[in-house]
Order: sequence, then structure tokens, then C-alpha cells
Amino acid sequence: MRARRIGLSTSQHQPTAYMRSDCDVCRSEGFAARSEILVASGHGEIVAGIVHCSPELLHGDEIGLCEKAWASLRVEPGELVAVGHAPTVASLGELRRRVYGNRLSQGSFQAIITDVVAGRYNDVHLASFVTACSAFPLDLDETMGLTRAMVDVGDRLSWGSGIVVDKHSVGGLPGNRTTPIVVAIVAAQGLLMPKTSSRAITSPAGTADTMETLAPVDLNLAAIRRVVEQEGGCIVWGGSVRLSPADDFIIGVERVLDLDAVGQMVASVLSKKIAAGSTHLVIDMPIGPSAKVRSEAAGIVLSDALLAVARGFGLETRIMPGPGLEPVGRGIGPALEARDVLAVLRNNPGLEDLRSRAIELAGAILELGGRTPPRSGAELAAQTLASGSAWEKFQRICEAQGGMREPPCAAHRHTLTAARPGRITGIDNRKLAKLAKLAGAPAAKAAGLEMHVRLGDAVEIGRELCTVHAETHGELHYALAYAAADGAIFTVAE
Amino acid sequence: MRARRIGLSTSQHQPTAYMRSDCDVCRSEGFAARSEILVASGHGEIVAGIVHCSPELLHGDEIGLCEKAWASLRVEPGELVAVGHAPTVASLGELRRRVYGNRLSQGSFQAIITDVVAGRYNDVHLASFVTACSAFPLDLDETMGLTRAMVDVGDRLSWGSGIVVDKHSVGGLPGNRTTPIVVAIVAAQGLLMPKTSSRAITSPAGTADTMETLAPVDLNLAAIRRVVEQEGGCIVWGGSVRLSPADDFIIGVERVLDLDAVGQMVASVLSKKIAAGSTHLVIDMPIGPSAKVRSEAAGIVLSDALLAVARGFGLETRIMPGPGLEPVGRGIGPALEARDVLAVLRNNPGLEDLRSRAIELAGAILELGGRTPPRSGAELAAQTLASGSAWEKFQRICEAQGGMREPPCAAHRHTLTAARPGRITGIDNRKLAKLAKLAGAPAAKAAGLEMHVRLGDAVEIGRELCTVHAETHGELHYALAYAAADGAIFTVAE
Repeated sequence: MRARRIGLSTSQHQPTAYMRSDCDVCRSEGFAARSEILVASGHGEIVAGIVHCSPELLHGDEIGLCEKAWASLRVEPGELVAVGHAPTVASLGELRRRVYGNRLSQGSFQAIITDVVAGRYNDVHLASFVTACSAFPLDLDETMGLTRAMVDVGDRLSWGSGIVVDKHSVGGLPGNRTTPIVVAIVAAQGLLMPKTSSRAITSPAGTADTMETLAPVDLNLAAIRRVVEQEGGCIVWGGSVRLSPADDFIIGVERVLDLDAVGQMVASVLSKKIAAGSTHLVIDMPIGPSAKVRSEAAGIVLSDALLAVARGFGLETRIMPGPGLEPVGRGIGPALEARDVLAVLRNNPGLEDLRSRAIELAGAILELGGRTPPRSGAELAAQTLASGSAWEKFQRICEAQGGMREPPCAAHRHTLTAARPGRITGIDNRKLAKLAKLAGAPAAKAAGLEMHVRLGDAVEIGRELCTVHAETHGELHYALAYAAADGAIFTVAE
Repeated sequence: MRARRIGLSTSQHQPTAYMRSDCDVCRSEGFAARSEILVASGHGEIVAGIVHCSPELLHGDEIGLCEKAWASLRVEPGELVAVGHAPTVASLGELRRRVYGNRLSQGSFQAIITDVVAGRYNDVHLASFVTACSAFPLDLDETMGLTRAMVDVGDRLSWGSGIVVDKHSVGGLPGNRTTPIVVAIVAAQGLLMPKTSSRAITSPAGTADTMETLAPVDLNLAAIRRVVEQEGGCIVWGGSVRLSPADDFIIGVERVLDLDAVGQMVASVLSKKIAAGSTHLVIDMPIGPSAKVRSEAAGIVLSDALLAVARGFGLETRIMPGPGLEPVGRGIGPALEARDVLAVLRNNPGLEDLRSRAIELAGAILELGGRTPPRSGAELAAQTLASGSAWEKFQRICEAQGGMREPPCAAHRHTLTAARPGRITGIDNRKLAKLAKLAGAPAAKAAGLEMHVRLGDAVEIGRELCTVHAETHGELHYALAYAAADGAIFTVAE
């Protein structure tokens, strides 16, 4: 059939093919069954879900391709593509076995993850996999098996035979943007830290989004290697290197279901680090009722699993639990967090929580990487920051990545104020994150929230709580509608 | 925003809204998160998944609506609709509880099923629910709770205070089209059998599809009541009456995952019968490795659950296990099965398996409904058929429903033949059903398969096994490609 580009994009991973309901393939496949077909060009093949369209939208011999399908098949308009049966997805038998509570082998995870990355799992399959692994949690062997499968299905980086340090934050704490500060400190002290980060999937900002407001992050592997060779570190987007590509598929579905099984969290985190070629890893683990890890007990379970699997892969790991009751820093959203990062690097007063957290994490990395004896890392990290050494290194990294720039400012703002007097006894991180996202973050880089209060602050009526920043009036309005409807973001008590 | 009809239809239940990626709602909602919005018109509101479209496809103030959304909102082109946040789906907390193995109350099922029918569950949510109920099967109380919730969320029919008989086939056996024959026999003997049936969801034909080739089935409730009052029975499509509307949502996802948990099967079957107002029910249960119920043991488990729940609702039920090793009759597909039905009603020779199965089921209904003493139902049923009484009643029912007609014939055919000599030792019902569907059934009413052999038959090279019928050459070709690739439909052994 002749390929026709349809400018539509779903956020599901499975691409879509558009076909007239009166065409033979559609009649054969039927309508009610979430049918999938195989579409092949000279450059590759995809499994696509079928969407039926009315006859005015396509010619009889045309097949419409969504943007994802169009990009995958790399065809010209009108080029012929082959349309046929989607092959049976062999690993679904393994998925079914887990639904009934059976253990899965390394080979089973390999088969499942391979099919996931090849786009053969639709939302129903992905959701079933995530649910089955929450209903019947992965044991240690299975977590190792899933981790290995996720590493093996993507690319793998190597940085020579020396120490390569890395950092990960388990997440759930808005504004917790320590990475650029930590990389600057650690690289200034001579440890190799080639940090690849993701863009936000469901949070208001990922490290790559925030860094991008300060310098280019969209580097290919050759450029990344040049920066690292020159500066000993980088803060880039990992997109050009396919590290653990199954992770995004799985995380997207986990978020919809609000499921975060320990085994899948461990595999998600460690597969990316192992694929990135890291040898030494510090994990920041904020703990709080509205963070990702909701209690100390949950933290212990997750830590044990992380350490056991990391050990199995020869990855030296140290976990740093910390408070997770409220955001870190003042900004939530790419540009707003970037301003906090700059303020800390420049040793501006304020932002003590962000500064001390970054120092603590950098210190742990300096110790783990053998740059300093145990219990003296934080002091060295603090000195590196205070002396301006970290700030200088950060500027050099930005220049090496393509040039440093000023983060943008949002044109539209509105401040939420306290409706009654009292003390701030609770801050809901999840709702803050949602509000920042509705304001446009991270797609709108200047959008997000600017916090004005912390837990425990006493407030009077009219006291500024947080300012919503948005790039357009419409986004501001949309975000404020949510804040008005779901007011319990800040808990104020007598 | 101004509503614009987009002639696209997905087979998922959740409707789709199309928005320009540069519009404020899209920027707010973000892209990566399977976002959903609430769209409201004067006639109702829907939760829709967002698909981003490029700016050439819509004006800046337009929102595109898929066919399902357009039908639900009942707006005129260009009419204004309100676009806002999709409300939090409260029952997802209950879904999550089941994912972690907790029991669900009647109220929990009520909440979940209400949200499902309101379209608030997308494919990810539905798949998680189905998976959780397979991972942790429903106990008897829960099965009752789910059944009640599925009844309560839809319409309910009443036929006065007398006996109302019904029949259900658990399925998985192509061509097992006994209902029209059974209704004719039973109604000819004076029992009330107001049979509402579904169209096929994933099989090559549903009773409604097959019957529609013989008479109109698309009757509204008033018309259905008129037919039943006049003839004591009917064979219609249940579409105008919303009986257990959650069933289709759940079945669609179960089929994709090939999951058929006992509790959900029981709730699916019985909720429809209870809602239909039936008082006495005979269940045909074919058992075989490629039928829905794969073994005697599985049949016992399902039967026990069906009987226990039916008893709880005061529904008199009798289960008739039977052979499920091969199709019943010769035809698979609406028109082909209709021809078998006519042949049996007219007492044409042949089709003994279909005839005797229909007699057995009708006989059980006659006994259960008190028309005849135990163990004499089959004889009365056989007489009713042989005398022409059932054929006369069937013709009268067809006339009452709007007029009897001749089933169509397929223009294109191809016969599959035996490649080697031997004996037919196995027939794969699932693959036969798939082949019939790929040939176009049930959308193409004349399409399907015509069987020429039965289990145990001796065949020589070139012996006709089955003929594929299709309305277009393209569908025939598509189906034959499948048959060629997946040849093990008939197992022939020395």
C-alpha cells in the first residue's frame, strides 16, 4: 500500500496505522479486537495498531502512518510498504505464566524485554506485565534477570578501565536538582563523571531538561566523549545512546497505574547505570509520605535490593537516605531549578537545603571513588564549592557542551497565598509536581513553581506560598484551575 | 473549543480527542503521560485520551473528536465544547488494592464497574484489572459482588411473573449455532424465550450476526416486546438494551491477554442473564483442548462457580457439558452457519451433530421450564423438530421480527486440501476461528469456512478439508496467507 504521513502522535509507545474501514485488511482484521498489523518498508518493519478511518480521509490504496510509524519506516510520501499479519508475540506466554504466579527465568525476561523494545507489546500487554510483577513481586534472582535483560537489549558505554562515578536520585522530590552541582564538584576534584540523564517522563523536570536551559545537552556519542575527555565530566541527555531502552516503556505504564514494584525500580535504576559504564554509584533516596519511597521500612527494602543486585553486577554502590517531606530548593521546573543550581554554584546566600544535599552527595562520591578517606568527603566537597572551583568547572563543562546560556523567564505568573493563619504542617510533593506540570513544565522550560515557604513556617492570611510560572496565559489558567479544585497542596494547621 | 469531527475510530473503548501540540491544554498536559481530558457538551461529557496533531490539521481553537467521541457528545460541527481536567478516578485505589492481593467488597466492584462503563478506564487500567483478577482469582463472595455490580450498572428487563427460559454457550466451538433452533423448538412448545444475543467480539460469528442473515435483529425494546408477545420467543441483538454494559469492555481486554478467569467468566455470563430477566437457564459447555473450557477438571470448577452464583440470584441453572474437540455443523461464519440452521429446521439430512446438540439443549430447557418431566425433554424436542412445528415457529418469529430472508453467498472461495494421507487426529478450533475471521467474518456476512471433514475421518492426498469463503479477493488472499504460514489447523497422522 502507499504510505501517507498523518501528522498525529499518541503518547503510547505502539505506533498507529490508519486504514479505511472498507479496505480488505480492515475487513479481515475486524474491528473489535485491537488489531495489529505488520508494516514493512525498505528500512525496517513495525507492529502498528489499526485505527479505522472514513473513506474521505485516505485513497483506497493508502495506509496512513502516525508520526512514530513514519519516523520508524523512513519512507517517502507515496512509497510502497508491505502490510501483513503481525506475528505472534512469543513472549506473551511468559507474561501469562507470571500472571498465574510462576517464576520467570533470565531467558523469559530476555524474551519479554526484547519484544517490549521491538514495539510488539501494546498498552494492554505492558500493563499486564507491570501488574503481574506487582502482584507477584520479583525475587532477587528475577530482579537480576530483569536487570540483565534491560541492559542487554540496548547500547552499552565504556570509559576505559578506570573508575567511573555516577549518581542517581530515586525521585519524587520536586526541585531536587543536585546533579549539575555534584558533577561540577566531583569533576573539579578529578574523578570521571560522564553523567547521562533523562528528560522528565512524568515529573516537571528531568536533569536533562534543567541542564538544557544552561547549555546544549543534545550531544551525540562522539561529542559526549570529547567533552568528557576534555573536562572529566558532562551533564547531557542520554537520548542519542540507547541505554536500557525498555525503561521508558515500562515507566510510562507504571505511572498510569501508580505502581512501583521494588524489583522493577531496581532493574530500572541499575540497568541504566550498568549500561552507562559506571563502576561506582551513589543513590540519593529521599523518604517521605509523598515521595517515591514513603517510609523508612520501604527504604530499607529498596536499599537491600539495590545493593544486592548492584553487587551481582560488580557496581560499587552507596545509598544515602534523606528527608523527603518537601521540595528541595525554591524552583520546580527546568529554568527555575537551573536558577537554583546557578545560585548554589556561585555561592549566593540561601538555598541551604539544596547546597547541603549536593555537598553530602558529592562527598559520598568523592569517598566512594577513593578521592578522599571515609568521612572527609563532605568537607572536600564544601571547599570545592566555596572556593569557586566547582563553578569554574561547571562553566567549562557548559562551554565544552556548546556554550553557556541564561535560563528563560516566564511571562505569566500568579502567586498562591495562605487562606488562613497557622503553621505549614504538610506539603504534598505529588500535587506540587502536578501543578508545575500543568503550568507547562517541562515542555515549557520557563514554567513551574517558585516556593516561598518551607515545612514548619508560620504563615498569616495572604502570606505567599508559591508562585506559578507559565509561558502562556492559557497554561497559567489551566494550572490555577487545578490548584483551585484540589486545594490540599499545603496543609496549614493552627 | 470548537468541536470538529475527525472520521477516525479506534477499537479501544476510550474515545480520542485530537489537539494541536501547540495548544495550551496540550502544553499543560504534556506529551509523555497518556494524558486524558474531560470534554463536555450540552448532551454529556466524556473522558478522552489526547492525540497530538500537527498544526495543519486543525485550527487553533478546534478540538478534533473521534467517531466515538462525536457520537457521545452529540454536537454540531463547530459547536463549542468545554475542555478541562479529567477528574481523578476514585476506584483506581480499589484496583490497586487488588493488585496487591487484597479482597474487594461489593462496593469496590460497584465503584470499579461504574468507572469502567463511564469510560474512565483506559486500556492500561482495564488490563491491570483483568490481570489482577487472574493473578488473585475472585472467591465466591467476590464473584457475586462483581456479578451484581455488572447487573446494576446497566438496564434490566422484566417479562412479568412467569417462567422465562434462556440458554448460553460458554463458547470456543466454531459453528456451534444451536440458539435459533433451540428457541424455535422451545417457543413452539409454549415456553417464553425472549433471546437477546450479542454480535461477535472476537469470534467469527455471534448469534446476532448469524440470525441477521435470516431476519432483522436490530429491534428496539418495544419491537422486541411485540415479537415476544406474539410468538413467545425471539432471537434479536441485545444492543438497544444495555444489559451488563461493562462486559464488552472487560472481554475485549481479556481476549488480548488470553485470560479467562473463572470469576470473571461467571460474572460475564450470569450478569447478562440476570439483567435479561431470565429465571431458568441452560448452559452449553463444550470441553476440549482448543475450546474455551479445556478439560473436565476446568469444567467442574467453572460449573461449580456458575451454579453457586446463579443460586445466589435465584436463577435456576443446569449445565450441559459436551464434546469440544471440533466444530459443530459445517459452516463457520454468519451466512454459512445460518444455512446449517435452516437445514436442521427443515429436517434436511446430515448435520447430525448440530441437530442432536440442539435437541439435547432444547430438551433440557423443556425439562427445566417444567414443560415436560425429567428425561423426556429430548424426545419432545426431537418431535417438535421432526414434525415441522419448530420450522413453522422459526418462520413466524422471522416474519414478526421484520421478514425472513435468504443468507448471502460468498463470491470468492478456495478449498484447502490434505497434503498427505492419514487420519484427522486433531482440529484446532482457535485457528479455524481465526481463519474464518481473516476471511472477513463476521463483518462480511457471507465469509467464513465450510468444513468437509470431521475428527477421525481418513483422508487421501488432495482430499478437501475446508473451503474458505470471502466476499472480496483481498480478504480471501489475506486469510490464505495465514493458513499457509500457520498450517497446523488440521493434524493428520498415519
